[in-house]
Amino acid sequence: MDPTTKINIPESELERIVIVGGGFGGLQMARKLVKANYQVVLIDRNNYHQFQPLFYQVAMAGLEPSSIVFPFRKLFQGRENIFIRMAEVTHVDPVARQLQTPLGHCNYDHLIVATGADTNYYGNEELARRTLPMKSVSEALYLRNSILDDYEDALTTPSYDDRQELVDIVIVGGGATGVELAGSLAEMKKHVLPKDYPELDVEAEFDIYLVQSGDVILKGMSANSSAKALKYLEDLGVKVLLNSRVESFDGKQVTLDDGSTIVSQKVIWAAGIRGEPLKGLPPESITYGNRLAVDRFNRVKGTENIYAIGDVAYMEEPAFPKGHPQVAQVAIQMGEHLARNFRYRHLRGEEWEPFHYRDKGSMATIGRGRAVVDIPKPEFHFGGVMAWLVWLVVHLFAILGSRNKVFVFLNWVYNYINYNQSLRLIIRPRKVPAERTP
Amino acid sequence: MDPTTKINIPESELERIVIVGGGFGGLQMARKLVKANYQVVLIDRNNYHQFQPLFYQVAMAGLEPSSIVFPFRKLFQGRENIFIRMAEVTHVDPVARQLQTPLGHCNYDHLIVATGADTNYYGNEELARRTLPMKSVSEALYLRNSILDDYEDALTTPSYDDRQELVDIVIVGGGATGVELAGSLAEMKKHVLPKDYPELDVEAEFDIYLVQSGDVILKGMSANSSAKALKYLEDLGVKVLLNSRVESFDGKQVTLDDGSTIVSQKVIWAAGIRGEPLKGLPPESITYGNRLAVDRFNRVKGTENIYAIGDVAYMEEPAFPKGHPQVAQVAIQMGEHLARNFRYRHLRGEEWEPFHYRDKGSMATIGRGRAVVDIPKPEFHFGGVMAWLVWLVVHLFAILGSRNKVFVFLNWVYNYINYNQSLRLIIRPRKVPAERTP
Repeated sequence: MDPTTKINIPESELERIVIVGGGFGGLQMARKLVKANYQVVLIDRNNYHQFQPLFYQVAMAGLEPSSIVFPFRKLFQGRENIFIRMAEVTHVDPVARQLQTPLGHCNYDHLIVATGADTNYYGNEELARRTLPMKSVSEALYLRNSILDDYEDALTTPSYDDRQELVDIVIVGGGATGVELAGSLAEMKKHVLPKDYPELDVEAEFDIYLVQSGDVILKGMSANSSAKALKYLEDLGVKVLLNSRVESFDGKQVTLDDGSTIVSQKVIWAAGIRGEPLKGLPPESITYGNRLAVDRFNRVKGTENIYAIGDVAYMEEPAFPKGHPQVAQVAIQMGEHLARNFRYRHLRGEEWEPFHYRDKGSMATIGRGRAVVDIPKPEFHFGGVMAWLVWLVVHLFAILGSRNKVFVFLNWVYNYINYNQSLRLIIRPRKVPAERTP
Repeated sequence: MDPTTKINIPESELERIVIVGGGFGGLQMARKLVKANYQVVLIDRNNYHQFQPLFYQVAMAGLEPSSIVFPFRKLFQGRENIFIRMAEVTHVDPVARQLQTPLGHCNYDHLIVATGADTNYYGNEELARRTLPMKSVSEALYLRNSILDDYEDALTTPSYDDRQELVDIVIVGGGATGVELAGSLAEMKKHVLPKDYPELDVEAEFDIYLVQSGDVILKGMSANSSAKALKYLEDLGVKVLLNSRVESFDGKQVTLDDGSTIVSQKVIWAAGIRGEPLKGLPPESITYGNRLAVDRFNRVKGTENIYAIGDVAYMEEPAFPKGHPQVAQVAIQMGEHLARNFRYRHLRGEEWEPFHYRDKGSMATIGRGRAVVDIPKPEFHFGGVMAWLVWLVVHLFAILGSRNKVFVFLNWVYNYINYNQSLRLIIRPRKVPAERTP
């Protein structure tokens, strides 16, 4: 498209805040700017917000994508100062205060970079090409389809060795994503697969590996919770390999750093993330983990009128001298805080308040009836069924929209009673059916 | 794959019935053969059964695909004589009694062709390439995504004429699919789009055309119901063009047989279906509408041990001298009847009973609170809210699985109260996210 074409947003006398990315941070910021004296433009590559903590349940056929995502237009119906555009931002010109998108360019008075983070392959092209990521609901759906496809293929693979490639799954990364995925795969192996595939010896043949580089899983949590989570996973039959790194993966076999190998075609990569800032920002603004260095007011270093929040932002504060963890809570609190600075201080010419993160704790679930919870103040850790119930309630309340809450809740109840996820469907949007007529 | 490879199904002393296609007919047949003294192999290109009558609600973002499809493996859990294989059957060799699939070949003692029908473009390659079909849940999902994509694009299209191409929709075919789709699009235009796209003049700019070649819509129904349905559609603002045929469509403009044109990029083709028999069957077995000619016992003409049921079968009986309508009821009754002949008569060497279709009536719904119902004996037609409630109840009961019933019901209640489908999501399974990092 001609770069002089302007994105079609009405001119306004209000200052224009453009938010790029409608994840936890960007969405929270837009919501807190509803009816404020700004024109707010929210640009996202999708037309919906994604509830990332439950991606693994989509991948494991426990939830439908639609239950954990929410269309932006519906969220902002009737909000006259909010404009939504579905587009990929290709470039930012900080001098002209302008964004480039395939829909045309878009000027801004204030730019909020809330583009989050993407999977980090640490420069290994082979792993980037051959492993499966899980950083969007589309990728979770792809993962679901490929797991189910491989089980179907295993049925018609008479050779034991060939079958191992199809049924064994390797998860790399012992953070919350890897642990929750491993736990939920192990549940599926135990309760669902033997009924679906009576022709296969699921118990003996299907292995789930979790490869973790450090000596604990759930590194960000308490030692207590880490140990408990490890025990839960091992009870479920997951083969947890600590102090191990994946060296290479040729599409059929994973080689670890100690030279040992695992036969598998399916490697899920959850070993790390890296910031995904916009193109065109000055190089000096980019710091550790490809994140944007920001001050306590979320202003991006070396720029003017550009702010970053959430996973893509790197901010040091006294209590977090090495930056905040890249979790939803930080993004939400930054989005809300920055919106307040704009809404209540910027317009009145008052001094801005610095951001301060309040850690509300962290949790992870490992299969049916098992979870770990850390609460920071007063410091307190607990696990088991109680922690699992807390996990359920917290996540249910965090999901946007009453319809989604009801549907997720019903799915959970149904799956809990039946030990049987019902969404084992390989569905792909398709225009023209494969040729079959004579 | 080497054609000598055998599909991996255990040898058995029982006769093997292979059913190709798990639609209404094939699925019903397999269910009625559970625990019968046959080895039953059900082959389908998908791992799920699709409830076709509600595809249009998936396309209109009212229901999720998962609510109207059901995984075969779950349906047949614990049924030891039923084997499920996900594969495309590429060829049948009636002499060797063998099917070819990408998974290897499969022998049969009895072959049931339940492959249904696909969209009929009447040989027009241009229409086949450029219009959107809706004969599978994947196609319905594709249609949903492309409608929503086009509305998003319309927002950034300043020219009125260019915008018309994006927002106007042409539906070709005045059968149940076309009519239900048009009604539901009109509802969305009325209740949802003005709220989602306040920047566009939905009322004035969005047009829905229904092009029908004959002089009535819902041709298979009573004159009474046809007239009522037409009135309902016109009340909803649908532009119904009777006695019109689409001559050509260049991707931006539809030309009708009277020379008039409609500007639109989106043409939905629901103008007819054609049988989709397997490759390798003798030419003399194929008759009207590319269907397989069968006798009253569903035996395919010119073959042995090959049977056809449902939309792909063409059977004449005294009450239906020109064959049965291609509807779900016929397929279900044929599947059940043929299973009974196999189960209760074939094994005992008894004479088979000829098929006889019992017409239970037909119905169609046209938006909120409006439907038409025809009951054949005693002949009785009614419309309005009562018909709509009957339509809801009948379809709800016909959907497989209690979970699906509950979810469809809740979605309907939710949409009815809110006037607001919540599934306006453009989701595609995707492995690797589009490049965005610098």
